[in-house]
Amino acid sequence: MTNTRVTIAEIAREAGVSEATVSKVLNGRTEVAPATRARVQELLDARGYERRGTRVEERTGLIDLVISELNTPWSMDVLRGAEQEARRAGAAVVVTSTEGRSDESWLDRVTERRSDGVLLVLSPLPSGAARRLTAAGIPFVLVDPVGGFDPAIPTVGVTNWAGGLAATEHLIGLGHRRIGIVTGPTDLVCSQQRLEGYRAALGRAGRPVDDTLVRYGDFRADGGAREVRALLDLPDPPTAVFAGSDLQATGVYAEAHRRGLRIPDELSVVGFDDVALCEWVSPTLTTVRQPLLEMARMAIRSVLDPTESDRPLRLELATSLVTRASTAPPSA
Amino acid sequence: MTNTRVTIAEIAREAGVSEATVSKVLNGRTEVAPATRARVQELLDARGYERRGTRVEERTGLIDLVISELNTPWSMDVLRGAEQEARRAGAAVVVTSTEGRSDESWLDRVTERRSDGVLLVLSPLPSGAARRLTAAGIPFVLVDPVGGFDPAIPTVGVTNWAGGLAATEHLIGLGHRRIGIVTGPTDLVCSQQRLEGYRAALGRAGRPVDDTLVRYGDFRADGGAREVRALLDLPDPPTAVFAGSDLQATGVYAEAHRRGLRIPDELSVVGFDDVALCEWVSPTLTTVRQPLLEMARMAIRSVLDPTESDRPLRLELATSLVTRASTAPPSA
Repeated sequence: MTNTRVTIAEIAREAGVSEATVSKVLNGRTEVAPATRARVQELLDARGYERRGTRVEERTGLIDLVISELNTPWSMDVLRGAEQEARRAGAAVVVTSTEGRSDESWLDRVTERRSDGVLLVLSPLPSGAARRLTAAGIPFVLVDPVGGFDPAIPTVGVTNWAGGLAATEHLIGLGHRRIGIVTGPTDLVCSQQRLEGYRAALGRAGRPVDDTLVRYGDFRADGGAREVRALLDLPDPPTAVFAGSDLQATGVYAEAHRRGLRIPDELSVVGFDDVALCEWVSPTLTTVRQPLLEMARMAIRSVLDPTESDRPLRLELATSLVTRASTAPPSA
Repeated sequence: MTNTRVTIAEIAREAGVSEATVSKVLNGRTEVAPATRARVQELLDARGYERRGTRVEERTGLIDLVISELNTPWSMDVLRGAEQEARRAGAAVVVTSTEGRSDESWLDRVTERRSDGVLLVLSPLPSGAARRLTAAGIPFVLVDPVGGFDPAIPTVGVTNWAGGLAATEHLIGLGHRRIGIVTGPTDLVCSQQRLEGYRAALGRAGRPVDDTLVRYGDFRADGGAREVRALLDLPDPPTAVFAGSDLQATGVYAEAHRRGLRIPDELSVVGFDDVALCEWVSPTLTTVRQPLLEMARMAIRSVLDPTESDRPLRLELATSLVTRASTAPPSA
């Protein structure tokens, strides 16, 4: 540690701008005029401003994780990844749930305690949140397992399209010809992306897309059960279903159980997420893995070291297929 | 709020003891000589020391939740309850996982940040933890879903014995005559308590306990599968199993699935915990409910208001049976 490090205040004085502006440049925010950004960046470089750990001496050692719901199957994995990485960096994670309310009182708490950074697991992000956190100079990143899309917000997400493609190609590869999909709610970008991946897989295999096999759920078990019921009631029902999420897959299991349909012998099922429940259901669930722990770890690193880029972080981590016992070739 | 409230320092001066001793009396610790305790307590009463919220002016607004593993099915419910109650009190929850290590570096962090209180979800509790937290004047409580037992440690737990009784009486009431049990690991008090509840239920019904029907698992899915396999391989296998925990019940489901045994038609299953997975498995799982959210809420209240009693808190919340689709009368 050196005591001669240049400070944000010094850079601001030399550049003739406010400390907030220097902070914005450091945090890669977009609302700084290009000429100002260039001047500040030049000074930062010339003075050898230390990017890594710059704010260490002012750090509170606290990183906030603000999450809309704690009782989703994937919230625990996000928390685990965040907690591990924060601990490694000598920090600790403060957890706040908004419980789905649009109430933004958490913003007051986060700014009051001068949090070193904020991981947001909120969809949609309240409109004022990004602005207020930027004004307070608190780095933040959206950890986004359901796929919002705002290019101005630093985001760690996954390749939903590629995931939908992999799920569907797996079922095609097993020999299924009637493959249904229950994707997520229509208003979520990731639902569309997963559906487009499904369509692309069928297209690549030279198969037409039968729109009667496409359903939209709610990313809950109930939606999965309801929508697969519609699929199984078709005159020519599917022999395999891409369930859109692991939780929706549990609804597919419930409906199959109700009908006495055996998985995978009479119905193959693929989920999306790869959360703990995949190992708890019988048969264990083949799924598309979202690397939730890794997403949270990268998000922690990005808020603790927010100056690596002058553009908002936008990461999409790769998904991968995890084959378990819920998929098999169709019975003859 | 009044500014004329008597402080711990004043009480200590008048009583001729250290502030730490007053703190110990306030926090209900046992290591204060009875005469000293009486003298301090008298002064506290005489001066009208305000028990509720006394430390408000020094509060950091942070409560630590230290948990051995974040990936148990019940950790999310404990966190949810703690987060809700802390938020209601204007505080926030800092989450640390020990990841099963005996490393006690979390104690340094907790004392450094002058946490307002600590919820411990550790079993067993490291020997030095209680002592160090007491010395630092930080109130703490053990939230104990697996049933440790140390009368000197403030604890919020559940009635494991009554839970085992209720599970078994439910199966007896359905007409089962061969009822197996896979309880938890032998070294956990709660495993013994749940087993004793099972024995008591059989005893009340005038049934002998057949020791071949009693197995010990590991509170994981694998243990449930392995131990129920032994039960189902008996010449006269049970028609119903009390699985000891919800996670062990998923192992019972897996083994039943492997054998093509239908639940509940050919095997009834009861879990213990009532976590989210009970609704995710097919059929949904009948279980003994641990009120995990309520346990965590009470724990938060007890650390924020630790002076209600001069003895360590020891609460056992009632369990209750939640009947779902995994239990039915035995097939004739």
